[in-house]
Amino acid sequence: MADGEGREIGAGHGEEGPAATRPAGRGAGRSIRAVQFGLGPIGQACVRELVGRAGVELVGGIDVDPEKAGRDLGEVCGLDRPLGLPVRGDAETALGELRPDVALHTTTSFLPEVAGQLELLLGAGVSVASSTEELFWPWDRDAAFCERIDAAARRGGAAVVGTGVNPGFAMDVLPLSLTGVCTRVERIVVTRTVDAGRRRLPLRRKVGAGLTEDAFAARRSAGGFGHIGLEESARALAAGLGWPVDRLEETFGPVLAERRAETPGLDVEAGRVAGIHQTVRVESRGRERLVLDLKMYVGAEGSEDRIEIDGTPPLTVRAEGGIFGDTATVAALVNAIPLVLAAPPGLRTMLDLPVPRAFGT
Amino acid sequence: MADGEGREIGAGHGEEGPAATRPAGRGAGRSIRAVQFGLGPIGQACVRELVGRAGVELVGGIDVDPEKAGRDLGEVCGLDRPLGLPVRGDAETALGELRPDVALHTTTSFLPEVAGQLELLLGAGVSVASSTEELFWPWDRDAAFCERIDAAARRGGAAVVGTGVNPGFAMDVLPLSLTGVCTRVERIVVTRTVDAGRRRLPLRRKVGAGLTEDAFAARRSAGGFGHIGLEESARALAAGLGWPVDRLEETFGPVLAERRAETPGLDVEAGRVAGIHQTVRVESRGRERLVLDLKMYVGAEGSEDRIEIDGTPPLTVRAEGGIFGDTATVAALVNAIPLVLAAPPGLRTMLDLPVPRAFGT
Repeated sequence: MADGEGREIGAGHGEEGPAATRPAGRGAGRSIRAVQFGLGPIGQACVRELVGRAGVELVGGIDVDPEKAGRDLGEVCGLDRPLGLPVRGDAETALGELRPDVALHTTTSFLPEVAGQLELLLGAGVSVASSTEELFWPWDRDAAFCERIDAAARRGGAAVVGTGVNPGFAMDVLPLSLTGVCTRVERIVVTRTVDAGRRRLPLRRKVGAGLTEDAFAARRSAGGFGHIGLEESARALAAGLGWPVDRLEETFGPVLAERRAETPGLDVEAGRVAGIHQTVRVESRGRERLVLDLKMYVGAEGSEDRIEIDGTPPLTVRAEGGIFGDTATVAALVNAIPLVLAAPPGLRTMLDLPVPRAFGT
Repeated sequence: MADGEGREIGAGHGEEGPAATRPAGRGAGRSIRAVQFGLGPIGQACVRELVGRAGVELVGGIDVDPEKAGRDLGEVCGLDRPLGLPVRGDAETALGELRPDVALHTTTSFLPEVAGQLELLLGAGVSVASSTEELFWPWDRDAAFCERIDAAARRGGAAVVGTGVNPGFAMDVLPLSLTGVCTRVERIVVTRTVDAGRRRLPLRRKVGAGLTEDAFAARRSAGGFGHIGLEESARALAAGLGWPVDRLEETFGPVLAERRAETPGLDVEAGRVAGIHQTVRVESRGRERLVLDLKMYVGAEGSEDRIEIDGTPPLTVRAEGGIFGDTATVAALVNAIPLVLAAPPGLRTMLDLPVPRAFGT
């Protein structure tokens, strides 16, 4: 990173100054070259955000789906104009040609499936902000994966971080930051209530909306169902506070629809599954100190994020109506670009990086 | 900073891992040696917090007040037991003998008065978390001061940051962090309403409680009156968002008491000044984009912190009852210890450091 630059008026200052107020370390002094890796609904939304964002040049999109590869990136992402960039299915060749500084990585939720993708990106010297939920706090889940990815990042001189609205902010980074004004923290209760009827179709599917109870149970046994990352949020929060996790208990069950609800592309009959209620409780030093309680179902009333800190001073903080997840996840990814570019090479978490902030807005 | 440490169970991981989850760079592997510099009400409260805090050893207190120097630090700070540490009036000698890693610096609000104090601390290699409001965002106010302090810090291998609840969190760092989940930010309105009757006596004096309107006007003309740092909060928020400050307007006036109010050590008659209403508005790129509105007066009802972001998604976040400032400022200072110790040497701001968090709680 540049040193002794002195002050930039209206921007940052000095070595490792406010990361997001400078064009960032790698890629400084010109537009950041960004590539979108993964073109599902979140990836497509990222592309729509990156187009025209000040300080960023979208140089391409990568997806292995043969129905997308070769088509124009703008068309695939629902833009009303072509971008003149064909979707690339050949990631390695594409990275060599496009020479991006950073990738927004939005493929799957789970570590084993993204290891090769991340190694490819980091090996090409491309820093990564990823929506992979398990990557938000990966060390407790798979230390070998982390050593491998961290080494690849350092070799490539790049940094990688997992982020999003949840995990990534609403139930972990935001409550953690609030404890910064507490002299004592006894217990934290975070509740997030989301009306899944207002969210994107894949999220409604992910929470089982419309299923019978039996089908829900079967899907649950098969794994990879429900909200991913609640345990990661809890472990990050505990680690941030220096609280050893003596016991972590996760409960997970369906919320049944009391009445029929229609949502775009998916209707929920009364008595069918409307969504999920998922809770993680953490015991530390002999008592329960963290409760993360997440309800995501079609028809949920009173959507909000609520953080209660039993501490000194006590704090009750509410985001009225809740932080709207589809947009917020895209925002968290795009806004992580300057932060991850300014971070030292390696596998990072949002707890390592400076306070998040919007950029280019 | 140590590299290649691998993972510490339940703590941080790797180089520059989560700062507050490790005992910090300088001073790692043993208790952090902390000194309290300035023993006014906030400094005394810091001492009471530092005593017995896990991971920190309070090694002394420094104050130039001849009525404090020589007395036991515990007695001066209202502890029910002596600490066996005499308050030191001779800062330079004391620092040489006590060899602290970090100082909590709580003397005055203004840059010119703290320059020598900070140089002394930083020159002794002591990192500093300071309550000096103007230090929260000092570059716009006094670049020469900043160059001087930054140079002293780098020479000493120490870092210095200004923090507190406000400026430092409620009206700047917290709203900024919320923008991290926004793709667009059009305008931010932050309101903080504080019942000064519940706050410490010096704060009630600072907001003019009990004065006549004429005395308030006279005090105001003399300067250094009212809340210090609202402009700093606004400039930090603007810089964090990359918004040029085209115009900044501060308004400041008394709030008059509608009825008589009694508070410990200070009564307010009806018609006298109950406190202040202070507002900063920032125009950027041709329109008003930031409003910071602060009311601090005896008898204020509806104490709260409220952040409204006109953006995508829109956000309304409220801290019910408000973030109680006396405790929160002490917390912000104490909790900054691991962050400032892990920071690269130099003059830093809270926008450079990782997400704040409680530690040793």
